[in-house]
Amino acid sequence: MVWRLLHKRVVYRDRWVEVSWADVRLPDGTGYRYTALRRVPGAAVVAVNDKGDLLLQEEYRYPLGKVILQLPGGLVDPGETPLVTAQRELREETGYEADEWEFLGVVQDNPGLIEGATTVFLARKVRRVTTPRPERTEHLTVRWCPWNQVLAHVREGQIEDRVLLAAVAFLCARGPVV
Amino acid sequence: MVWRLLHKRVVYRDRWVEVSWADVRLPDGTGYRYTALRRVPGAAVVAVNDKGDLLLQEEYRYPLGKVILQLPGGLVDPGETPLVTAQRELREETGYEADEWEFLGVVQDNPGLIEGATTVFLARKVRRVTTPRPERTEHLTVRWCPWNQVLAHVREGQIEDRVLLAAVAFLCARGPVV
Repeated sequence: MVWRLLHKRVVYRDRWVEVSWADVRLPDGTGYRYTALRRVPGAAVVAVNDKGDLLLQEEYRYPLGKVILQLPGGLVDPGETPLVTAQRELREETGYEADEWEFLGVVQDNPGLIEGATTVFLARKVRRVTTPRPERTEHLTVRWCPWNQVLAHVREGQIEDRVLLAAVAFLCARGPVV
Repeated sequence: MVWRLLHKRVVYRDRWVEVSWADVRLPDGTGYRYTALRRVPGAAVVAVNDKGDLLLQEEYRYPLGKVILQLPGGLVDPGETPLVTAQRELREETGYEADEWEFLGVVQDNPGLIEGATTVFLARKVRRVTTPRPERTEHLTVRWCPWNQVLAHVREGQIEDRVLLAAVAFLCARGPVV
């Protein structure tokens, strides 16, 4: 099934994303030009308190022009593992730390267009240790949301972010976390 | 919270995706240059049979260089509604039609980078009406997967596609479909 790469040309690149044309040989022997993107990997955190509430953010996201519900998280800095990124972002964006960390899963932005993975972790035994220090481009608020309310938000169409939806799927498949 | 757009420059565009720089004014009054993408909207189908099994695809996806599990679906053609796209793609990719269609939800590829929505529908009362006619770039197989097996795939890290993970979240929040 594999497509054979004949030639690749990068048509755009900045510090977040690379856009390229790939001239490929399809399995039927014909040629095809495919636009493929890559972005810096990311990590996100499902922080859960003793009641099973989830720590959600509301953040203004420029590409959609609106405020959305999402998880704490961000891009992996050079030299970081996704777990370290998740721990750093939780602290920076929410002021919380956690004693128990567990891998939940990986979600890709869009396998037909972009290589863009986000690794999602479950964080338990959380405590507020500092004041949130978001970057100047981050305009966000944080709140605890009961699990049943998270499911209601999903049902009512209030959650569109792929990472938060994936996290709900990971948690449903995993079973109770408290 | 809104960012004010001062100037936008398209740096790349083809028939699937547009990449642009936006020079914006942040709420604190400072300037910032943001890379934002848009892609053609898509639609996808959770086709369910009388036993509650889901129709899954395995397709080779070039950006990831591997075969992944996903739902039937594709990009919205000019003049189509997402529902019409979902019905067309189900027929083209799997040979199935369905009598009952229901909106499940919308998932965005990555709200921090790209405006790229996929509308997910639930299709019931399905029947095979024709032979699948995938496009020459689509190398896929189709199989029915019991719901418990779908959850096991999620738990074991075999599902990374944001649309299929979102669909699992939509279904968990919605409750039993058969």
